[in-house]
Amino acid sequence: MLKQINFNVKIDKDKYKVLKDELEGKLGVLQRKIKDLKIPVMILFEGWDAAGKGTLINDLMLPLDPRSFSVNCMKEPNYEEINRPFLWRYWETIPEKGRLSIFDQAYYQDLFNKDILKKNQREKMIPEINDFEKTLSNDGTVIIKFFIHISKKEQKRRMKKLLDDPVTAWRVTKTDLKENKNYDRLLEKLETILLQTDTFAGPWTIIEGEVRHYALIKIYQVIVKRLEKAVQKAENSVKPIYKPLITENDDPLRTKILEHVQTNQEMDKITYHKERKLCQKRLRELEYEIYQKRIPVVLAFEGYDAGGKGGAIKRVCKNLDPRGYQVHPTAAPTTEELNHNYLWRFYKNIPKCGHVEIFDRTWYGRLMVEPIEGFCTQVEYDRAFSEINAFERQLTDFGAIVLKFWMQISYDEQERRFKEREANPEKQWKITDEDWRNREKWGAYSVAVDRMILKTSTEKAPWIIVEGDNKYYARIKVLKAIISAIENKIKEQNC
Amino acid sequence: MLKQINFNVKIDKDKYKVLKDELEGKLGVLQRKIKDLKIPVMILFEGWDAAGKGTLINDLMLPLDPRSFSVNCMKEPNYEEINRPFLWRYWETIPEKGRLSIFDQAYYQDLFNKDILKKNQREKMIPEINDFEKTLSNDGTVIIKFFIHISKKEQKRRMKKLLDDPVTAWRVTKTDLKENKNYDRLLEKLETILLQTDTFAGPWTIIEGEVRHYALIKIYQVIVKRLEKAVQKAENSVKPIYKPLITENDDPLRTKILEHVQTNQEMDKITYHKERKLCQKRLRELEYEIYQKRIPVVLAFEGYDAGGKGGAIKRVCKNLDPRGYQVHPTAAPTTEELNHNYLWRFYKNIPKCGHVEIFDRTWYGRLMVEPIEGFCTQVEYDRAFSEINAFERQLTDFGAIVLKFWMQISYDEQERRFKEREANPEKQWKITDEDWRNREKWGAYSVAVDRMILKTSTEKAPWIIVEGDNKYYARIKVLKAIISAIENKIKEQNC
Repeated sequence: MLKQINFNVKIDKDKYKVLKDELEGKLGVLQRKIKDLKIPVMILFEGWDAAGKGTLINDLMLPLDPRSFSVNCMKEPNYEEINRPFLWRYWETIPEKGRLSIFDQAYYQDLFNKDILKKNQREKMIPEINDFEKTLSNDGTVIIKFFIHISKKEQKRRMKKLLDDPVTAWRVTKTDLKENKNYDRLLEKLETILLQTDTFAGPWTIIEGEVRHYALIKIYQVIVKRLEKAVQKAENSVKPIYKPLITENDDPLRTKILEHVQTNQEMDKITYHKERKLCQKRLRELEYEIYQKRIPVVLAFEGYDAGGKGGAIKRVCKNLDPRGYQVHPTAAPTTEELNHNYLWRFYKNIPKCGHVEIFDRTWYGRLMVEPIEGFCTQVEYDRAFSEINAFERQLTDFGAIVLKFWMQISYDEQERRFKEREANPEKQWKITDEDWRNREKWGAYSVAVDRMILKTSTEKAPWIIVEGDNKYYARIKVLKAIISAIENKIKEQNC
Repeated sequence: MLKQINFNVKIDKDKYKVLKDELEGKLGVLQRKIKDLKIPVMILFEGWDAAGKGTLINDLMLPLDPRSFSVNCMKEPNYEEINRPFLWRYWETIPEKGRLSIFDQAYYQDLFNKDILKKNQREKMIPEINDFEKTLSNDGTVIIKFFIHISKKEQKRRMKKLLDDPVTAWRVTKTDLKENKNYDRLLEKLETILLQTDTFAGPWTIIEGEVRHYALIKIYQVIVKRLEKAVQKAENSVKPIYKPLITENDDPLRTKILEHVQTNQEMDKITYHKERKLCQKRLRELEYEIYQKRIPVVLAFEGYDAGGKGGAIKRVCKNLDPRGYQVHPTAAPTTEELNHNYLWRFYKNIPKCGHVEIFDRTWYGRLMVEPIEGFCTQVEYDRAFSEINAFERQLTDFGAIVLKFWMQISYDEQERRFKEREANPEKQWKITDEDWRNREKWGAYSVAVDRMILKTSTEKAPWIIVEGDNKYYARIKVLKAIISAIENKIKEQNC
């Protein structure tokens, strides 16, 4: 891609002015359409040091309406960022629907700049980037990627010019000079990376950065073209049909999982309290160990209403140092959250190294309530299995422990608990008409959950089904599962 | 996926009969619709030894119209097959549009069965399989994958039953018995493989193989559901618009590659003949070496009409042992070829180890003539870059040398050659009105070819641009490029 670039390009001055005016006009119109049609747009600028990324971004910003774009300039990751998977900070900044996010270097810098990165690390990052872009693109995000290219000679010339002027000399660092020295070797590496990340979801455009006017017009044209295409697609697309996708009678011969769960396990109060205390003590010790060993932990809880999620989470946290963990209840998404990819609000809360994040309901809403209530389309639902597996793989590849608990109770036990809640003034808040309505969809949930457990239970991020009719039994099972997963991980690390 | 399966499933006899009749009726109707709508369908059966795959396939065949399905039973690869990438023999058997291909074990057996396969080999095969299924699915192929699952105990019981009867004892091999012994270890491996290949394009359905009636009904239901979905999609889809996608004025600021090629290189006749003889002698030696070293070689030639492809190919082959190479001219696709994925006809001809296959025009038609003439849709065109890169990566990962020559001549030189052909009675057959018409699209071709070279020139499968106005120069450049690529590969192997 870079090797074929010839810098012998030009655009004459008069033509430049005419084209610039014309394209800026189009950009303005398109930006408004993008907003109306709620299309998110990401524009990435990558390139050599001294290639002129900053200048070009400044030029591009001028004709845009500042109310609906933002520029992200992300340099060295900070402490919070370095302690999470490298894409985390970019997930934070993905554009809201209808907005443009411009990146003065994004996740590719993590691939490009670090000589320290070993080849096998890079090879792991590339599929993660491709998955990330595909997830966003599937969801309608337009991803436009520019690589601003200059030759070794031109880079040297520019650096020299900066160094010669005392006002600008500070801008050229030792790393920059080293980049110029190693230009040819780096070029080979870049070529491979660009080719491997030049995808249908996120294609690259190489910009001849030596000729500024030419570069700007080319950038304008590519953006106009991609946005026009997206606008046309959005205008012509059939309005998606939102309707319940899963019913009780759906797929009666599916693999049945929940049906075979013996929810009526037993445990008496005395055993429970004895075991609980032992487990909580051990968990506190382990919390300290994972902090020392920098292991992140994700605990995800799902289950039928009144299935015992809250009670179990309370017992997990009971003895923990509150600086080391956090509980995230998941309510209906806010408007801001609806304006982003559905994984966005969860990605924000993934743990940093050594911390525990507990989710009371999770991203699995996309595979349960959303298809059952008709909040997502068939394609969004079908695609979510691999998107969620990719999301969790990113966490486990980073070294996180990921455990997913399904709290299963019997249909009768749920009724008993609902009625008990209604009868008890202190618990009345916990039960609403909504809960009774959901109960009518018990069958549809069984279908959705069976499929979900079948398709997203992976070796490193397994579903643990908790037999929940007896709360004592259920809580101890959860505690022991967490303890054993952490102990195994520590053992594995010590090997 | 397998671990969650519970074999405690049943279907009562009366219900079975009703459902079977109903589903067989539906299957018949759907098969006709599939044929009319030209949808290709692949149905894969994988599973444990003695799981009953064969019986289930036989049952499935009964209600189908034999004129539009075929069953492929592919066991150990033969000599031709083992000397090519493992997916080759499956490419050969992909279904034609409107037909069903049923596989009694397909490419997954290469992953599942071989204990000898090392983990890293398997990890390379999985992305290849996923790419393969995605390429076919993008093109409209419905991919239905069944894994017939039985427990260790049941497998043992069935094997014992076979062994006890002298008539069937021969069917149980030592490998089968070993599989049962290692069942648990294999289960872990299978679980990982199934999860990693459970994609949007090719989702898995696990079949409870212990209960035959239940299994059959489940298989029927899944097929009916998938086909109904595909039929509905095809019936509702907007007819694709076929129109020229690339014009001369398209994307004037694109990376220009051809424009900078100095086509007017020089070489005199005497130098040419001297060099040619040396090169041809050396190439003959190398042909023997690659045969010895089992290296497959792909030489692909593209270029403007009268660009010198034929002449160059002739000089390459001049001295070669005809048993070691073959030339494949690429004409307009036949109906049979049009009824398959566009890569199918090229995949058929990839070289086996130690052989050279030369393509006079290639799969790059999808990136040149097809978008220019409007023979493919925009999405098909956009997707083809990564599909072709994946196709070539499969070859180079297998160890093949892949060289792609672009024969570039100037616009004036083409005119001169066209006129010369018209004037020479012996060469008149080489020039048609079609050629003059294509010449008018020179500009559009430049746009398409620039983009093609930019996006598909990879380190291991590079494009070599040949300055072609002087035929002598061009031919020697081609010969030397081939020689040096083979020499480098041999050097690399010797390291």
